[in-house]
Amino acid sequence: MATLQAIKYNDGQLEILDQLLLPESCTFIPIFNVEDAWAAIREMKVRGAPAIAIVGCLSLAAELRKLAAPDTKEELCRLVKEKLDYLVTSRPTAVNMQLAAEACVKLCTQLTANTLVNVAEAKDAVVKSLEATLANDMADNLAIGEHGANDVMKKTATKDKIRIMTHCNTGSLATAGYGTALGVIRSLHKASKLDQVYCTETRPYNQGSRLTAFELVYEKIPATLVCDSMAAAAMKQFKIDAVIVGADRVAANGDTANKIGTYQLAVLAKSHDVLFYVAAPFSSIDFQIPNGRSIPIEERPHSEMTHTGSLRTAAAGINCWNPGFDVTPAELITGGIITEKGVFKADQLAPPQ
Amino acid sequence: MATLQAIKYNDGQLEILDQLLLPESCTFIPIFNVEDAWAAIREMKVRGAPAIAIVGCLSLAAELRKLAAPDTKEELCRLVKEKLDYLVTSRPTAVNMQLAAEACVKLCTQLTANTLVNVAEAKDAVVKSLEATLANDMADNLAIGEHGANDVMKKTATKDKIRIMTHCNTGSLATAGYGTALGVIRSLHKASKLDQVYCTETRPYNQGSRLTAFELVYEKIPATLVCDSMAAAAMKQFKIDAVIVGADRVAANGDTANKIGTYQLAVLAKSHDVLFYVAAPFSSIDFQIPNGRSIPIEERPHSEMTHTGSLRTAAAGINCWNPGFDVTPAELITGGIITEKGVFKADQLAPPQ
Repeated sequence: MATLQAIKYNDGQLEILDQLLLPESCTFIPIFNVEDAWAAIREMKVRGAPAIAIVGCLSLAAELRKLAAPDTKEELCRLVKEKLDYLVTSRPTAVNMQLAAEACVKLCTQLTANTLVNVAEAKDAVVKSLEATLANDMADNLAIGEHGANDVMKKTATKDKIRIMTHCNTGSLATAGYGTALGVIRSLHKASKLDQVYCTETRPYNQGSRLTAFELVYEKIPATLVCDSMAAAAMKQFKIDAVIVGADRVAANGDTANKIGTYQLAVLAKSHDVLFYVAAPFSSIDFQIPNGRSIPIEERPHSEMTHTGSLRTAAAGINCWNPGFDVTPAELITGGIITEKGVFKADQLAPPQ
Repeated sequence: MATLQAIKYNDGQLEILDQLLLPESCTFIPIFNVEDAWAAIREMKVRGAPAIAIVGCLSLAAELRKLAAPDTKEELCRLVKEKLDYLVTSRPTAVNMQLAAEACVKLCTQLTANTLVNVAEAKDAVVKSLEATLANDMADNLAIGEHGANDVMKKTATKDKIRIMTHCNTGSLATAGYGTALGVIRSLHKASKLDQVYCTETRPYNQGSRLTAFELVYEKIPATLVCDSMAAAAMKQFKIDAVIVGADRVAANGDTANKIGTYQLAVLAKSHDVLFYVAAPFSSIDFQIPNGRSIPIEERPHSEMTHTGSLRTAAAGINCWNPGFDVTPAELITGGIITEKGVFKADQLAPPQ
């Protein structure tokens, strides 16, 4: 079965699956410009660090395609930079959109300096580069899946079948398709090595029960949903082999910001002798940031915790703490950091030359 | 402010607060007989190990009061035993109802053997003994609160104010009133030593966000709700001093069955150097059971995880694992087991002589 596709782009027409409506309804909504993308990201109609960057880039491509080329390349540069800066403000924790923006601005600067390129050609080149993010991410995910599955199989070589736990959603719904952590799980399943994947509910937004469970059922991957509170009991009872999670941002030393609850899973994995992996495109590694203490952690609205839809599930008047992410120290990432370039120990990370 | 009272009993009239309707509505429902009690316990209109036993006992008292005395004491014995055996089947994990049933049957046997007591007097004695469970539990809770608060204060003596994390609901809604773990928290607050209590949501049934948060807001105790996935991050960020939880059943060696998620909190507390306490009436200790492996763990319906009210929150078709409880090994209970008789280390537990 084909994997689920949540971002559709064709000749400047961008549509995304509205993840807020899952699992009730599978509805695609059009994104015409960067304002639409910003709002969709902010409202979490699309989420997941790679998907945020892709939708941001494609929304700008769609907008640029409809636009007549500006008078000068400098003007094009200014316009592109302004729109990218705006997109970066949609959510603060993931680094992918920011890195994509920096790369695009760098390209604009190069094109501006290149006297052989006119403004129309420069615009086309920028559009093409933005549009390439979709296929690039898909290729990266397939490589992540391959590297990760091989590493897990190598480290659990005595096992016939492998039991994996994952957190949040890192699949087709969080990426261009296939997924990062869930891509590794897909690759293990394709290799007939997966006994069962345990996906955590991932409160308060239920990305696990709504989105990951949806993908797993959709592709008939053997899966069991557990509440976040059941992780340790499940590790013990089912003898989980590895926990594999995604990343919103990895610091230079390997400290990893990811969905709230990840840190706790890493502590529990350590105490149960379970391998702990982070799977993310290499672009999620932010070499500008020395360690996890410098990663900004988004605090989200209390209503995510007090209500489910319009139903109140918490006592009125209670104070809440709702951080969207936490930081897992590098030393707890015992399996390694799985990227499209291979699997790295935290102390092996080095910026691309 | 008076503490919340969830079980009302007066001259054979029993009413309980329907906890399924909290926090939306504070509605009391009458319980006329053991069938009503069985159904209310099974449907979790009342939950919490001590409260289950109290409602069971009071429902039988209410029923016996309305009944003409049987012809013989043997007949009374049979009737009482039959109804108690039925009540015990309502939920399997907590031991309190079972112990209360055993004590009542023992009393019946003694009364039957006592030739100075006639059947009407025997019936009255049984009713009085069943009715006493309410006041006895309240007295036990106050003692648990006192012992626990003193122990916590002693072990955190350098701290001006204390930060506590608790799980599930162990307060007025789970007991005759005041509570076990929440009783300790109430006592710390009365002693002006409580900085903040962090209560976990307690998925999938949200006893933390619905019930504990309700009690804490009701009594203006400084409190913050966190998701179960945030426990480790909260321990680290807020420098929690102690985790205090209740117990559904404590084995002879101190292994403790309690709401799913407790084991995980104990592991996290250990790795964050946070004290971990269990607070429960001495009757929760089941000396018949050598260790936690022998405690039956109830599996609850998947719908608790897939739906919130009538709203589906998990993908259709996903398999679930929904154990109601887990077992925390005695060695993780670093603070001790707080009972009305004092605070015990696991290896100090001994049956009453």
